[in-house]
Amino acid sequence: MASYSAPVSEIRFVLDDVLDIGRLNALPAFADVGLDTIHGAIEEAAKLLEEQLAPLHRSSDQGCTWAYGEVRTPTGYREFYERFQQGGWIGISQSPEYGGSGFPYVVGKVIEEMTCSANVSFALYPTLTTGCYEAIESCGDEEQHRLYCTKLATGEWGGTMCLTEPQAGSDVGAIKTRALPEADGSYRIDGNKIFISSGEHDLTENIIHLVLARLPDAPPGVRGLSTFVVPKFLVNADGTPGERNSVRCVSIEHKMGLHGSATCSLAFEAAKGWLVGKPGHGIQNMFVMMNFARIGVGIQGLGQCELATQNAIRYARDRKQGKSESGSELIVDHPDVRRMLLHMKAITEGARVLAYETATYVDIARNHPDPAVREEAQDWVELGTPLTKSFCTDSGFDLASMALQVYGGHGYVQEHGIEQIVRDAKIFCIYEGTNGIQALDLVRRKLTLREGRLPSRFISAVRGELESSEDSVSSDRPCPPRWKPWNTPQRKFRSSACKVRPTPRLVAPTTCARSR
Amino acid sequence: MASYSAPVSEIRFVLDDVLDIGRLNALPAFADVGLDTIHGAIEEAAKLLEEQLAPLHRSSDQGCTWAYGEVRTPTGYREFYERFQQGGWIGISQSPEYGGSGFPYVVGKVIEEMTCSANVSFALYPTLTTGCYEAIESCGDEEQHRLYCTKLATGEWGGTMCLTEPQAGSDVGAIKTRALPEADGSYRIDGNKIFISSGEHDLTENIIHLVLARLPDAPPGVRGLSTFVVPKFLVNADGTPGERNSVRCVSIEHKMGLHGSATCSLAFEAAKGWLVGKPGHGIQNMFVMMNFARIGVGIQGLGQCELATQNAIRYARDRKQGKSESGSELIVDHPDVRRMLLHMKAITEGARVLAYETATYVDIARNHPDPAVREEAQDWVELGTPLTKSFCTDSGFDLASMALQVYGGHGYVQEHGIEQIVRDAKIFCIYEGTNGIQALDLVRRKLTLREGRLPSRFISAVRGELESSEDSVSSDRPCPPRWKPWNTPQRKFRSSACKVRPTPRLVAPTTCARSR
Repeated sequence: MASYSAPVSEIRFVLDDVLDIGRLNALPAFADVGLDTIHGAIEEAAKLLEEQLAPLHRSSDQGCTWAYGEVRTPTGYREFYERFQQGGWIGISQSPEYGGSGFPYVVGKVIEEMTCSANVSFALYPTLTTGCYEAIESCGDEEQHRLYCTKLATGEWGGTMCLTEPQAGSDVGAIKTRALPEADGSYRIDGNKIFISSGEHDLTENIIHLVLARLPDAPPGVRGLSTFVVPKFLVNADGTPGERNSVRCVSIEHKMGLHGSATCSLAFEAAKGWLVGKPGHGIQNMFVMMNFARIGVGIQGLGQCELATQNAIRYARDRKQGKSESGSELIVDHPDVRRMLLHMKAITEGARVLAYETATYVDIARNHPDPAVREEAQDWVELGTPLTKSFCTDSGFDLASMALQVYGGHGYVQEHGIEQIVRDAKIFCIYEGTNGIQALDLVRRKLTLREGRLPSRFISAVRGELESSEDSVSSDRPCPPRWKPWNTPQRKFRSSACKVRPTPRLVAPTTCARSR
Repeated sequence: MASYSAPVSEIRFVLDDVLDIGRLNALPAFADVGLDTIHGAIEEAAKLLEEQLAPLHRSSDQGCTWAYGEVRTPTGYREFYERFQQGGWIGISQSPEYGGSGFPYVVGKVIEEMTCSANVSFALYPTLTTGCYEAIESCGDEEQHRLYCTKLATGEWGGTMCLTEPQAGSDVGAIKTRALPEADGSYRIDGNKIFISSGEHDLTENIIHLVLARLPDAPPGVRGLSTFVVPKFLVNADGTPGERNSVRCVSIEHKMGLHGSATCSLAFEAAKGWLVGKPGHGIQNMFVMMNFARIGVGIQGLGQCELATQNAIRYARDRKQGKSESGSELIVDHPDVRRMLLHMKAITEGARVLAYETATYVDIARNHPDPAVREEAQDWVELGTPLTKSFCTDSGFDLASMALQVYGGHGYVQEHGIEQIVRDAKIFCIYEGTNGIQALDLVRRKLTLREGRLPSRFISAVRGELESSEDSVSSDRPCPPRWKPWNTPQRKFRSSACKVRPTPRLVAPTTCARSR
């Protein structure tokens, strides 16, 4: 079975030395969240995930079972979910107003990376809940906030996003599900959704579906879509779950991997729903969720990069086979194996910086008091989102496949759990917009947005970096025109924080880490 | 389920127009095998494999079952094996002396490609048999030829190659299995082998194991290895199977893919075996088999390239999703999908030329009357073998993964059979020497062999090609110093045989084919 040791030291290196996220403490929203608190939370989560979630990696692969509309998650999921939810981990970066812990978004992504490494099928349940929460928080009304956000922020209830239909995958505009207004202000929802992650399960007492559907006389295409909240159990005025709504899970998919995540076909048959946000704004509302979801999928890919890399390194340091030039029998000392491991390590660490930096800009874009800084940070988020999604997920699959290659024939048999990483990782290149669609988003939308301001910022940042590198480390040259946290710590990084140890043998899992 | 339509027209384009294999007819060994006979055989095999083997693709994935030492192959395997074997397809390029049909080696590889596309798990059974036959034919004595070759050539019995042990994978020299001479001239074999493809099954009445083991006082490492033939049922003097030998299948592996192929752990406990070839020549004997096996694994990769590509093209021409610039709703008209399909098609066709050309040189190296031509052809085989193995298998996995990307979320669910291709294809990058070991073979052995003659030949051939391309097609310049069949048809190819049709839409599966 694949094992997992949370790379706390690598994570802290990126957070502290590369991104200097301690500076987020200066933002009013995070005045109570000091660096020590963040470090403490990460260490605590690491321990929990390593010890209690990672051992379920194998049972995940046994999959979910479906019978009579009910889904049973793999052995151990319910018990761990309860512990995870009650520990406050699901709501770590959600607003305290709704019961969250108010940590920065980037810290939530760190916990997510570790959760995804430990058990990515499990990780999908809280991830979808968070996405659903974010869309309702951003587009819902006060009543919806009261009824749903309080339960979703903490993971007490689960959430989903119901977009895909058999004829409408990448082409969201082809959605046919209909919403008819009822006399009581609610809507009658009829339609069939497929590929709905976490659409039905036994982890929470209620599931809140966010559904894209068409009002009568809505125009064709995406402009005719509106968002509806459709709870599995209708919610009583006091916030408790009441009557069962008529949304049913008619089957679950048998997939290549990610077996522990229930991928459901849902039938909405005169289900009761409520409009979220304005009519016809369905796609805009969903994009609130979807953009964060894309960063989240990038994190899923990153989690697989890390898991694949550290398992391959451990195996290569243990497995003896043949003799290398140096006389060592360990396969880590064979040049081709070493090449693969160093490649994996480099890509994983690069992917982590890309993902965490994009997430840090989310925090700045949301919370910085200066509108100009917020605007610039938002530009970085928009540019970084398709890159994070596609780079981290392509890498997740490639590195998993490379890890299998390091294991050789033993990686191809199921007991080592390595082939499971390959099978799990492939879907991340596809869902939340295939990586081809991320490329379209980058080239046709992001590069031309606001008269090309996004790539211009990137190019001038790179230029600034190059110029400042020409000086000595102690140079007094002003930083290039970007938010400072990115630049200052890079100098620190170059000057002292990172000591690349001259090891004759690959040291796993840290090749370049500051001392804890 | 993945479906398969044999690419007869593409195959003939490579055989006839690129390689001009009709010229093999001029070799005494193939005097009776004209081009029409070859075409006829390919068409007939194509029909059989498309109609009767390809439909078992899904049942293959259900896997083999093991109980009390016996292995049951998937539904339909036994019936098809009988038909395939009795049709003479297993022995198509084996020597008529032992019951084979005496077709060129390259024609055998063509049938193998189609078999691997139709059902690669099934294909492994005859492939291993062929490898075992080749080693005994080349290294065994007359008695062994009589007892085993006659049954193996035709696939009446199955064969295996037993190298790997738990501590000895890539490092063959670490093999521990022991062989003790007995008074009757046989040997007592004791040891445990793992990862033995086709090690036990219900397709043939006997299985002939070719086992690497150590004689008493043999030196350590590969020099101490000898080859033994160890039949599942000892063979009576009249060639019928007799007493059960003490080799048992103690388990089969649960693998990522290739479920229809039984990967066995075999226990040899005082099993009776006979020395094949000279003592201490085990590794040389096995390399007879292994080099051909490497070309064979390349063919397995090629089979997956073709299967992935043609399924992706069919799906893309059928699936509607969104609108491309041209207004078409078919995903084949989306530029990114088109890019993937054209890439897949190009790699598949290139891989086919590489594999078939290497196989054609095997025929020349074995059968040309002129020793100088044989020697040159052998150089090409040696250079081409690691290239064919690694390029075709890396491509098999990459294209399968790309096909899944074309299918999107639908490719990730099992019912389309596309994710099965990804799972099946990964092992080809590993077994018969990982692709890293192929690189070692190429760089450390083949490039320096015979004072660098192999790469010199390649470079001068490329130079010759470049020079001759500068002239007109009808040029009378002499061919560069290589065996003519390679050059002449290339001129034909450039001049007229291949018409790239100016199609506005990708025509599947043939983009560049001569008319049948």
